[in-house]
Amino acid sequence: MKSEEFATAQMKEKLTIVKVGGAVVEDELQLSQLLKDFSAIQGRKVLVHGGGRKATKMAERLGIETHMVNGRRITDGDMLEVVTMVYGGLVNKNLVARLQANGVNAIGLTGADAGVIRSHKRSPVVVDGSPVDFGYAGDVDHVSSKTLVHLIEAGITPVLAPLTHDGNGHVLNTNADTIASEAAKALANDYDVTLIFSFEKKGVLSNPDDEESVIPVITRTLFNKYKADGTISGGMLPKIENALKATEAGVSKVIITLATAIDGKHGTVIEMKNER
Amino acid sequence: MKSEEFATAQMKEKLTIVKVGGAVVEDELQLSQLLKDFSAIQGRKVLVHGGGRKATKMAERLGIETHMVNGRRITDGDMLEVVTMVYGGLVNKNLVARLQANGVNAIGLTGADAGVIRSHKRSPVVVDGSPVDFGYAGDVDHVSSKTLVHLIEAGITPVLAPLTHDGNGHVLNTNADTIASEAAKALANDYDVTLIFSFEKKGVLSNPDDEESVIPVITRTLFNKYKADGTISGGMLPKIENALKATEAGVSKVIITLATAIDGKHGTVIEMKNER
Repeated sequence: MKSEEFATAQMKEKLTIVKVGGAVVEDELQLSQLLKDFSAIQGRKVLVHGGGRKATKMAERLGIETHMVNGRRITDGDMLEVVTMVYGGLVNKNLVARLQANGVNAIGLTGADAGVIRSHKRSPVVVDGSPVDFGYAGDVDHVSSKTLVHLIEAGITPVLAPLTHDGNGHVLNTNADTIASEAAKALANDYDVTLIFSFEKKGVLSNPDDEESVIPVITRTLFNKYKADGTISGGMLPKIENALKATEAGVSKVIITLATAIDGKHGTVIEMKNER
Repeated sequence: MKSEEFATAQMKEKLTIVKVGGAVVEDELQLSQLLKDFSAIQGRKVLVHGGGRKATKMAERLGIETHMVNGRRITDGDMLEVVTMVYGGLVNKNLVARLQANGVNAIGLTGADAGVIRSHKRSPVVVDGSPVDFGYAGDVDHVSSKTLVHLIEAGITPVLAPLTHDGNGHVLNTNADTIASEAAKALANDYDVTLIFSFEKKGVLSNPDDEESVIPVITRTLFNKYKADGTISGGMLPKIENALKATEAGVSKVIITLATAIDGKHGTVIEMKNER
């Protein structure tokens, strides 16, 4: 990093983006702790939420079958109605009302609201040799950081639902991890961004059977080493790859941690440090 | 009106608030016309929507019974989930996405979002001699015009769902007409507000059997006359009473018109004119 860039980075205000998944949204005990901890985070912040389990339950009550391929939901017209209701309405508005009660001036947003996240409908992709049409699933094209910055600088905390729009009048279903990463990358031009992915483990584990074996820091160099020697494998590989890409696109650091430990002092920190 | 007040009123920017009911939201032909007409309105604007029919249908699909008293929904816990999903998610986000496609930088808001409308849970009221508990129904305490003005001045068009919050973490169901009137009154401090209620008739009719018998202008004096001689009766009485109260609280004029004629040139104009 050149000294000038370093100076600019130092001058940026801190922004914390927390992503909370559907499992936590469903568990009242974990959720109320997370909202308390999120409310306690000082300074500028953004919450990104999922809600997949609630959507699946609501779909079931409505007699709509849920189909998943590689952990991603197939979103047909009926399922789009369900996720629009559940993510944009039920989950988002309850989170916003509860944050307001905690003194956080939250505003719930889908990508359609103030046009903050534009996407396009995903073309069919080949999975295990067969084409899969994910339906009304949106791949992100653009995050309007200008609008988000305008709200944040007015003291407002955006709460982003995993929905986007295509600019032609359609809401699209978009993965919450992707929303969080894309928002973090876009906002990294304006802020010193820390992106926190909360999940059900204490961090990235070096031994999956030992909950205490949290790897404290992962850099690109360390990731390559852990990947080669098999310390990290399976579903964690794409998660960490995406986190490293976010840091390479300007996000200061990504933290993977328990939903009840989002204070920035726990979990695995993924950063570029060693590459500097 | 004193000349000073007149000068201030003249200097205010115009703001148009359009309220669209559940019947129009359900009818694709009327809705697309309304969205086209709303998009064509020049200058600052706000859309307020209902969605009661969609909520009733969704409740039915979920096996939840709808109970209405005097045209108002009884909102128990299950029904609150339904209206939060349908008004805050399904209806609101689709309207926002469609307005975005029309070039309107819409943002969907419930009262909880950025704390724009605070309410309290309605106490049981006596209807026809018996106490009725409307459940999670919110009566409006305060509209934060500051936040709405901040958004509007940033070129954003608020799209208000008929939901509010109590400041203690709860979303409450609030009548869309009330949301429209309360927002109009609060914004009248900052703008020269025209409030348009769209419905299924061409305006207030002097003869209910003649669709063309639209009364062009109603003032407080004319209202008292029409009320006394029976020209206006039934459900129109409280509607016009509320409209007159809005004008007495600073709203420049209220228009009652067809959903496909919201250009400000049709319908019945309710204003204070004769009282000046």
